[in-house]
Amino acid sequence: MSKLVLIRHGESVWNKENKFTGWTDVDLSENGYAEARKAGAMLKQKNYSFDVAYTSYLKRAIRTLWLILDEMDMMWIDVFKTWKLNERHYGALQGLNKKETAEKEGEEKVHNWRRGFEIRPPAMTNEDDRWCGFEQKYRNIDYLPLSESLKDTINRCVPFYKKEIMPKLKKNKDVIVAAHGNSLRGLVKHIENISDGDIASLNIPTGVPYVYEFDENMQLKNNFYIET
Amino acid sequence: MSKLVLIRHGESVWNKENKFTGWTDVDLSENGYAEARKAGAMLKQKNYSFDVAYTSYLKRAIRTLWLILDEMDMMWIDVFKTWKLNERHYGALQGLNKKETAEKEGEEKVHNWRRGFEIRPPAMTNEDDRWCGFEQKYRNIDYLPLSESLKDTINRCVPFYKKEIMPKLKKNKDVIVAAHGNSLRGLVKHIENISDGDIASLNIPTGVPYVYEFDENMQLKNNFYIET
Repeated sequence: MSKLVLIRHGESVWNKENKFTGWTDVDLSENGYAEARKAGAMLKQKNYSFDVAYTSYLKRAIRTLWLILDEMDMMWIDVFKTWKLNERHYGALQGLNKKETAEKEGEEKVHNWRRGFEIRPPAMTNEDDRWCGFEQKYRNIDYLPLSESLKDTINRCVPFYKKEIMPKLKKNKDVIVAAHGNSLRGLVKHIENISDGDIASLNIPTGVPYVYEFDENMQLKNNFYIET
Repeated sequence: MSKLVLIRHGESVWNKENKFTGWTDVDLSENGYAEARKAGAMLKQKNYSFDVAYTSYLKRAIRTLWLILDEMDMMWIDVFKTWKLNERHYGALQGLNKKETAEKEGEEKVHNWRRGFEIRPPAMTNEDDRWCGFEQKYRNIDYLPLSESLKDTINRCVPFYKKEIMPKLKKNKDVIVAAHGNSLRGLVKHIENISDGDIASLNIPTGVPYVYEFDENMQLKNNFYIET
């Protein structure tokens, strides 16, 4: 039997400012730090332990993981980072205020960008100062999105899960994944076989560990949140 | 041309209490945190950047690395952890006060334990509560020392350096290693070809980045400390 624990990063500075974030590398807010520490303390109290951890290239997820591992006294475990667990790329909306954008573009359009399964927000250009291609961490990556639908995001997360994370679970390793609202939607959709129509409305709360227990044949036996 | 930066962890709680530490997993002191942050800030100011990092299984080294990467805004780089970069195992001395031990055992004996190249301190037993074999992080490791001489330590660090770190440098990757006084002595001895007799008296200060620059044939071109 193996365990997979998913955790969405704690509140970020831009969550607080109500901005579209996507791949913008903003840090946790003070509240986000506290959420992550609390999650770690609860996991420790309930005697969880991990063999390996995965996270994205974005510091709000990495820091959430570091704070959890610190609380659990498990700083030494293997940690793998990948852009494939990054948040959905929000295109030209990144950095804009959500409320102001809704006022300017109309509620319905913004709702569709946010919740449509296959709808991409307006693309960023690769000459935009905000474009991730200018950042060192993305320089060796062939494909860099200029905007992503939820479907696009899922199409990079789930193959990563199947290729890298599932084999660990099959070997009875316990795994923690610290990532983002939309990349975690991808994993949840795959594991719980949720439809395209239903996945966008599934909300994963920040900083609350979500546990999957699998048997030796990778059949899902149990899934539940750990109260923090 | 590639760069290798070595950094000895900042002051730990037991450095401060003047205890033999070895594999005991004590954390940084407040001063140790500040040393690590300062090293990171200096590396950033001098435009250093890394492709990959190595550290030990001990949190004083891992935290030093995390604080440096945080200051440099490079939390996303690959970090590999290994017990082979751990501090020298200090056997049954671990946890004892250095001054009290010298009073009890005699200055000369303690000096030899500390500075003799091939001399092992009295061994710990594997029934000792302090034995690392009881810790989860060492459970999959075949060889676990009960005491080590400096030579023993070097004999696990240098093969690791040759097998894992050198290939990265040969591929022009810039590497940072956050580790311990004696494991770093091993790397310095190998890279600078220092004799068995001279290496024990070489002191690497805590929290000060030590830079090696290699040409494309892995010839050492330059080595210097970065002033912090």
